[in-house]
Amino acid sequence: MKLKNLVGLRFKERPADCAIDSHALMVRGGYMKYVGNGIFSEYPVLHRITAKIENIIREEMDAIDGQEVLFPVVMPAELWQESGRYDSIGNELVRFQDRSGSKMVLGMTHEEAAVHLVREYGQSYQQYPFMIYQIQRKFRDEARPRAGMIRVREFTMKDAYSFHTSQEDLDAYYQKCYDAYHRIFKRVGIPEVVTVASDSGMMGGNISHEYMLLNEVGEDSIVLCSECDYRANMEAAENIVENVSMDKRYPLECIETPDCKTIEDVCSFLKSDVTTSCKAVVYQKNADDAFVVAFVRGDYEVNETKLRNLIGEEIHPAEITEESPLVAGYIGPYNISEQVSYYCDISLKGIDSLVAGANKEGFHYIGLNLERDIANIAYVDIAKVKEGNICPCCKKPSLTIKRGIEVGNIFQLGTKYTKSMNMQYVDKDSSIHYPVMGCYGIGIGRLAASVCEAKHDDYGPIWPISIAPWEVHLCCIRPDDEATKRIADDFYTELKSRNIDVIYDDREGIRAGQMFADADLLGAPIRMVVSPRNLKENRIEIVTRDKSINESVDISEALDYVLKLKEKMYSEI
Amino acid sequence: MKLKNLVGLRFKERPADCAIDSHALMVRGGYMKYVGNGIFSEYPVLHRITAKIENIIREEMDAIDGQEVLFPVVMPAELWQESGRYDSIGNELVRFQDRSGSKMVLGMTHEEAAVHLVREYGQSYQQYPFMIYQIQRKFRDEARPRAGMIRVREFTMKDAYSFHTSQEDLDAYYQKCYDAYHRIFKRVGIPEVVTVASDSGMMGGNISHEYMLLNEVGEDSIVLCSECDYRANMEAAENIVENVSMDKRYPLECIETPDCKTIEDVCSFLKSDVTTSCKAVVYQKNADDAFVVAFVRGDYEVNETKLRNLIGEEIHPAEITEESPLVAGYIGPYNISEQVSYYCDISLKGIDSLVAGANKEGFHYIGLNLERDIANIAYVDIAKVKEGNICPCCKKPSLTIKRGIEVGNIFQLGTKYTKSMNMQYVDKDSSIHYPVMGCYGIGIGRLAASVCEAKHDDYGPIWPISIAPWEVHLCCIRPDDEATKRIADDFYTELKSRNIDVIYDDREGIRAGQMFADADLLGAPIRMVVSPRNLKENRIEIVTRDKSINESVDISEALDYVLKLKEKMYSEI
Repeated sequence: MKLKNLVGLRFKERPADCAIDSHALMVRGGYMKYVGNGIFSEYPVLHRITAKIENIIREEMDAIDGQEVLFPVVMPAELWQESGRYDSIGNELVRFQDRSGSKMVLGMTHEEAAVHLVREYGQSYQQYPFMIYQIQRKFRDEARPRAGMIRVREFTMKDAYSFHTSQEDLDAYYQKCYDAYHRIFKRVGIPEVVTVASDSGMMGGNISHEYMLLNEVGEDSIVLCSECDYRANMEAAENIVENVSMDKRYPLECIETPDCKTIEDVCSFLKSDVTTSCKAVVYQKNADDAFVVAFVRGDYEVNETKLRNLIGEEIHPAEITEESPLVAGYIGPYNISEQVSYYCDISLKGIDSLVAGANKEGFHYIGLNLERDIANIAYVDIAKVKEGNICPCCKKPSLTIKRGIEVGNIFQLGTKYTKSMNMQYVDKDSSIHYPVMGCYGIGIGRLAASVCEAKHDDYGPIWPISIAPWEVHLCCIRPDDEATKRIADDFYTELKSRNIDVIYDDREGIRAGQMFADADLLGAPIRMVVSPRNLKENRIEIVTRDKSINESVDISEALDYVLKLKEKMYSEI
Repeated sequence: MKLKNLVGLRFKERPADCAIDSHALMVRGGYMKYVGNGIFSEYPVLHRITAKIENIIREEMDAIDGQEVLFPVVMPAELWQESGRYDSIGNELVRFQDRSGSKMVLGMTHEEAAVHLVREYGQSYQQYPFMIYQIQRKFRDEARPRAGMIRVREFTMKDAYSFHTSQEDLDAYYQKCYDAYHRIFKRVGIPEVVTVASDSGMMGGNISHEYMLLNEVGEDSIVLCSECDYRANMEAAENIVENVSMDKRYPLECIETPDCKTIEDVCSFLKSDVTTSCKAVVYQKNADDAFVVAFVRGDYEVNETKLRNLIGEEIHPAEITEESPLVAGYIGPYNISEQVSYYCDISLKGIDSLVAGANKEGFHYIGLNLERDIANIAYVDIAKVKEGNICPCCKKPSLTIKRGIEVGNIFQLGTKYTKSMNMQYVDKDSSIHYPVMGCYGIGIGRLAASVCEAKHDDYGPIWPISIAPWEVHLCCIRPDDEATKRIADDFYTELKSRNIDVIYDDREGIRAGQMFADADLLGAPIRMVVSPRNLKENRIEIVTRDKSINESVDISEALDYVLKLKEKMYSEI
């Protein structure tokens, strides 16, 4: 198509409200427009990219015997009540009533709809295994949408659901999908994506992996071992802390610690080390506001997801009032109110002598030894892993922590949904079972933005040819010059006839600099420039978006050059 | 793919809750599954069809310079407040609050989103004209979803929006789109679709057309002239009634008509003709419950859409209580309460002597002459056209009324949205104007169902090859017979390698009759049958779904035969 007809404005200034580069470039390049908090419209440029990504995903899903279906965006609450998620999911799930007063939800994921669709079909073992997937809009009422297309409320997602008659069969299929995902990320141009073991959260089930694009703007923390292959999401990373016992114990003593409401205050006041202090972080259960206290070593942070999974309930940061059975700033595990449930993290294990709140305004205990002083003390893993901690795999102190963008995830769901929604099949021997499920997601818009985040320079995205809005960007410098225009027009016709995806800039009165800036923002991998100056020598200019090639090529050879370059680019993906 | 892997069940019995054939067949064939009132999931079979329809539509939209974009399903209420539709649309528009309490709506159409997307882009006349379209899910909270995919609440729709600097330019583009739509309906296999002038209802603007598939199950009434090309939707059809004056007038007289609450009662009691009676139909305005009475000749029906457009407000059938200024059963235009607004239909014009309610329990007027008895009487067109009425175009009494399914619509919107949402452009001469808009919609699922409704027999849909889930249905009768299976397998491989969309039924232990019944339900246009019996003569059977061809073809010629048949089928579309 011609650039002058392309709907969408491009501009130079970085928008003030864009925290990350991909967002800024996709706004500057006329890819997307803000409609509301976490809600965007897509201009034609972005739609061309997402359509190509969707086709790659379709090919890979079809290649592992996936069958494309479509579930509704709006579903009756009953469906989600069957699985129990209507009540268990927080307000990310949009609930509303239709005109007749029936309760409805907006689909944020479609396990329920998938089971509903195949519940009758899957009544005989002979139908198994099978996988269905859809590419559909979803709405998740995120508390904090951010970073453009990275974390939105409405998004297009490919979500797939597989059904199996045995864990072994699921394992085998899960591996197939695991591999297909790597092919997808390779084909869209980010082969560097890594998998990490992840927490399966509200999805149920146990084994799950996230596909992470390591990138500083990512909102996920990933724990990697520099000595072995261990990789896990912070939420799933096992924390190993070895406190060295000095074999020296002190009596438990309650002492006055005026105005020492933080760990720093009390350690400084007592001249003790933060690694022998006990920090309290207080939550309340969403269901009944009951208090839950997490105790971690003073230098650790609580990982709320681990804690939530441990409790099996939704929690939120506590509000402590004068009526609460807790004294803010002075909370400790010894002598804590029986109205409160508490958990001690493994980072506290083996410390001879702890400083901890005395549950009394202005007082702390010193000399606290949990094993000695608290009956039946049990430790749990609820803290975030720290850089340099011990790898649970190779046992070396070589864990590092990086940021990543989650571009996909795969889950083994077990029978969580088939059991709760009563989907059963009759086996060969007439016995009745619940099928086991897997589910597999990729957010399309986030993936596009992630590729942009990984592949861009100051001037715009550097799209991999497989998902670029156009393969070739043809510029006609000085279209008012008749000969130049004719030759550029011929190239345009020729490229189209060769099925090259080409955008043609023949705008009059636009400086070359402006044309190139626009080309950079649109990010097509190959740029052809026809200008009066080059034509004098019967040549045109061919430049790649990543600046690795910048050639002046004879007109007669230009088309061939571009075709070969295109082929080479595809072959390298 | 192999039929044995196809997700979805097929069965023989017509489901009791399916009122129309396409719905019954699409349920029986495993195309769709009920999720909730007016909400369905699509199985792979249907998804294959809708994907093909979507691609045809894309090609035709791109051919008239459309650019595909994507608007969100969920939009902030502010956007709809800008256009005024947040308040003016009834409860078909789903309104809800997000977690932060912000008001949101579910997109049922996207004029607001379209203007929002291009409001800045379209600031210069140089950008015009342009057209953007999307294929996206929509939710419309219909009061009475019905007929399977024909009238649903959630649906996939192609909606397009064009922007122009003059009415002439819109007219020209409107014609282009008008033609593109005919190409689309031709390409999906229903060239018989006709256009009718339509009412533009809540969309604003004046000129609009609906594309109608004439079919008894349709919920629209279409007025056609048997003598000329006049075609209009009932809502838009001008009603011409010529009452012949006898030049005989009677005095106005109020007489007792006990227990005559209906037109039939009173005409029978007075031994007068229904064509000289005045019927009252009472509504209330949604905004303030004010009464609105529509008077029509006794043998006519009120067309609510005409009345609504006339009033310019939403109305609903009235509830008349003892406090109302109206006496149910005895309402007439003479001496009617001044608290009530009323309209007299043109069907009442020129009647010498009418019977009408006296606005008094148990009494009617006879001898009412509206021109004589009511000051400044004005007539409006608010009744439904009747079979045999006068054609507004050729003036012959040759109107007929048929049922139709609306498969598409196109509207000229004028500046309704650009004005209310303040979208302006600067013209060549620096003057500032509002662009004029057109909008163009096609519901994908309804179109699929409509094709099925138009093309089916008792055994299943007869899909046109262009949108059939598969082009060829290959049956292997007795796959336990080694030779048969080998030859069928070879055909399968060969067909796939020729890029034929083929489904292969090699299920063991299935009778031929069952295989054929399944093939009929899936509706592929070409069926190839490999069976031991035919193979004895070195032949296979080739049958078309519409039963027009049923040939036994030599194996060596079969592939060629099918390829040519396929080509012929496409060429005939």
